[in-house]
Amino acid sequence: MTKPPKTAITPIRAEDYPEWYQQIIKASDLAEKSPVRGCMVIKPWGYALWENIVHGMDDMFKATGVKNAYFPLFIPLSFLEKEAEHVEGFAKECAVVTHHRLEKNAQGGLVPAGELAEPLVVRPTSETIIGDSFSKWVSSYRDLPILINQWANVVRWEMRTRIFLRTSEFLWQEGHTAHATAEEAVERTHMMLDVYARFVENFLAIPVIRGRKTPTERFPGAVDTLCIEAMMQDRKALQAGTSHFLGQNFAVASGIRFQNAREEEEFAWTTSWGSSTRLIGGLIMTHSDDDGLVLPPRIASAHVVLLPIYRAEADHQRVMDYTTQLAADLRTQRYHDRSIQVEIDDRDIGGARGWDWVKKGIPLRIEIGPKDIEKDALFVGRRDRGPREKTSIPRTRFLQEVTAMLDDIQHLLYERARMFQETHTHKLDDRKAFEAYFTPRDSERPEIHGGFALSHWCGDARCEKQIKEKLNVTIRCIPMETIREEGGCVCCGRPSSERVVWAKAY
Amino acid sequence: MTKPPKTAITPIRAEDYPEWYQQIIKASDLAEKSPVRGCMVIKPWGYALWENIVHGMDDMFKATGVKNAYFPLFIPLSFLEKEAEHVEGFAKECAVVTHHRLEKNAQGGLVPAGELAEPLVVRPTSETIIGDSFSKWVSSYRDLPILINQWANVVRWEMRTRIFLRTSEFLWQEGHTAHATAEEAVERTHMMLDVYARFVENFLAIPVIRGRKTPTERFPGAVDTLCIEAMMQDRKALQAGTSHFLGQNFAVASGIRFQNAREEEEFAWTTSWGSSTRLIGGLIMTHSDDDGLVLPPRIASAHVVLLPIYRAEADHQRVMDYTTQLAADLRTQRYHDRSIQVEIDDRDIGGARGWDWVKKGIPLRIEIGPKDIEKDALFVGRRDRGPREKTSIPRTRFLQEVTAMLDDIQHLLYERARMFQETHTHKLDDRKAFEAYFTPRDSERPEIHGGFALSHWCGDARCEKQIKEKLNVTIRCIPMETIREEGGCVCCGRPSSERVVWAKAY
Repeated sequence: MTKPPKTAITPIRAEDYPEWYQQIIKASDLAEKSPVRGCMVIKPWGYALWENIVHGMDDMFKATGVKNAYFPLFIPLSFLEKEAEHVEGFAKECAVVTHHRLEKNAQGGLVPAGELAEPLVVRPTSETIIGDSFSKWVSSYRDLPILINQWANVVRWEMRTRIFLRTSEFLWQEGHTAHATAEEAVERTHMMLDVYARFVENFLAIPVIRGRKTPTERFPGAVDTLCIEAMMQDRKALQAGTSHFLGQNFAVASGIRFQNAREEEEFAWTTSWGSSTRLIGGLIMTHSDDDGLVLPPRIASAHVVLLPIYRAEADHQRVMDYTTQLAADLRTQRYHDRSIQVEIDDRDIGGARGWDWVKKGIPLRIEIGPKDIEKDALFVGRRDRGPREKTSIPRTRFLQEVTAMLDDIQHLLYERARMFQETHTHKLDDRKAFEAYFTPRDSERPEIHGGFALSHWCGDARCEKQIKEKLNVTIRCIPMETIREEGGCVCCGRPSSERVVWAKAY
Repeated sequence: MTKPPKTAITPIRAEDYPEWYQQIIKASDLAEKSPVRGCMVIKPWGYALWENIVHGMDDMFKATGVKNAYFPLFIPLSFLEKEAEHVEGFAKECAVVTHHRLEKNAQGGLVPAGELAEPLVVRPTSETIIGDSFSKWVSSYRDLPILINQWANVVRWEMRTRIFLRTSEFLWQEGHTAHATAEEAVERTHMMLDVYARFVENFLAIPVIRGRKTPTERFPGAVDTLCIEAMMQDRKALQAGTSHFLGQNFAVASGIRFQNAREEEEFAWTTSWGSSTRLIGGLIMTHSDDDGLVLPPRIASAHVVLLPIYRAEADHQRVMDYTTQLAADLRTQRYHDRSIQVEIDDRDIGGARGWDWVKKGIPLRIEIGPKDIEKDALFVGRRDRGPREKTSIPRTRFLQEVTAMLDDIQHLLYERARMFQETHTHKLDDRKAFEAYFTPRDSERPEIHGGFALSHWCGDARCEKQIKEKLNVTIRCIPMETIREEGGCVCCGRPSSERVVWAKAY
């Protein structure tokens, strides 16, 4: 038996994928658990990812005419109750505010006081509270469309949490629009799904499948839920963004009425669409390896770290001056929509320093020692290559090529993920083969399963349920780019005219 | 009696300042009350101001080495209790989460269920929850300083609320730092006050006085609270940012310990500093006039609105093409840290259109009609001048001069506010004169009072209390740039060596 290579992360992916995920987050200093049940602390290296997501996505939203606004954190219970399916969907995970001050009790301890006449729910999503505003903003078709987005925190009380993937509080954006016609609202629903797909593919370098949820998996209260689905390295699916066509359901619930051009009163047609800090979980699970986090340059918390090296104290000033000048030169260059972000790490901690930055996933590591300075060259390590692989590059050439090098890493990571997804996606027509595909062959590695199955489905929710109960596999989406093709449902054999994407999911 | 000129806002400032404030917010479409008690809805034109504040201030924070992070919305009750003065200061205004789901009762109504073992407080500020993280991040002096900022929502349950100035939920930033020495923490406290002062003066065009709070007005738990104070047009003071030196109080409460270079264990020295959506209230009350909002260009939601004018349908295409091209030309130009933001308003609503933009406070309004196009000229209205004053400017010259014109408006607004503050600041040494200054002479306009009084104070909290109870006037700050000068306390006559700033306050 060959000994596996020494890696920076223990356990490695193949040994224990869920634990590897937790260790990546720890080793790269992205985030940590908080003393508040299910809530996370997002540390600077992780929050910078979120800032870059916000920045990139926000520009794309605004380019489609969307404007940002902000609505209350609290939702009166009576608002939530207005849409029956909606409240049903969220009732089990609502944090409820019942009091508005603290008082000392007889023992001197603090207790809640000032009970509210109506309890307030900490928003799990804002359709009902934003709908109330829309109902006041709209009276004529001339007031439409309304195109609003909100960057906010939301709370969904989760019993089993995992940092970034499922937390009681998370950061997200929620877009809400109102339109005069169903066609326009449907068009917006697709437009925003397209924004998500382009953002996730171009910035996060995660290939996605665009599709539509089955009725079972729809957002509570929606007429149609569109989604993008990505494949993680354990071959499970992660939903990376959803866009809902809400029909007139929420307009009726919130009273969003308008006079059309013929002076008739109508209810508006609304949409909502969201993506969250969960994307960071997807980013980690798509690209990272057994040495730590791997960050695509377009979203990376920083692009380049400079590691000055000097043994003799006499070299110190010379090396630091050279390093500082290089940082300044790099920072004047733009990489896509921001200037190149440079970190300088001059801690005196030996070899651990370079490994720290491997684990943090920074795209480029540059070592600068007295000998390199003499040659006016840099020792460059790329995070997409082996952690010990470094190349000497003349400084001027590096400065000329650094953005191309970053783009190269970006494209390579995307291609690698795309090929992984392709390799682990199979057309399966036979129930037996389907079950075998989703049944772990190695009982010691239950987390590794087949991947995506493109299989037929008759459209019956009972088949979905049966497969889910037996295999814990669900329909991730009915893909947009489906090829109409006759076949038989992988569960019951009844006729079906298109393949859907089945997978285990986060 | 001369008839007052017709204004866009009713009432005007001189008639009813508080109501004028509400009407400005309504007319400019900045924000509105929400159905949730004390919470506001920030509408797109208002939220854009907040986005610009965040953007400008965040760059300044980062330039001092601060990094952003995110901490939980909820604080366990036991955390809040760790610092006695702190909990005392916030207990009366805490929203408390006591349950984590909703259940149907016998009548089919929803009621809170799943009572929490320990109630959670929705953060009114985050010293205690962030302190808990810091206590885990720090073990050696090498881990210090920690320089963190968080952009977040906070909740302080207020009984009497006013949009932007005092709301139950508001948006803010809170900076938290930990240091190895008191000196370094004090230096950081001053550094961040300086950032606030520069931001508020340079971006918001609001002149401020930098100073220190008296012990009575300190942040609960702080050793020293520094602040910037601005004068509104009703001559009341508005606190526009605070920076607290917390000594070791919160480090002791949260257990933020480290080993110093001599391997002795010490508690860290911490600071915190915050500013909020309240700044938007200050912005409104500093610059706006009886025709609506007036926005300083560096913070304006947009810089220029283009108003195409055509009567004959034949002109439509030509005017719109010219307008679109002008917008594109403007957008290629940068004004300080962003590109020029242009709105095009082609609504067919007659004269109301121009007035809408006056009320919204946009710095420049450009009318474009067929005759202007023939001359290749634009009709330009500046918001700092009368609403009917417009000048024809050749298009090329306008494009050359637009950024200078915006800077001119920016400086003019600042100068106007600075002179107003100067005019309404007086040295008062006599208690009688002091009382007269703060006693409204016109009983029909109780909201108009003197302004800032620079008067002596002996240092006794009882004098502060007496003056507050009698006149509702408080010490806004002990100014940094004070001239040591002997005198007698304006309340009791005892000796004092410096003047402080007294005023009525928001």
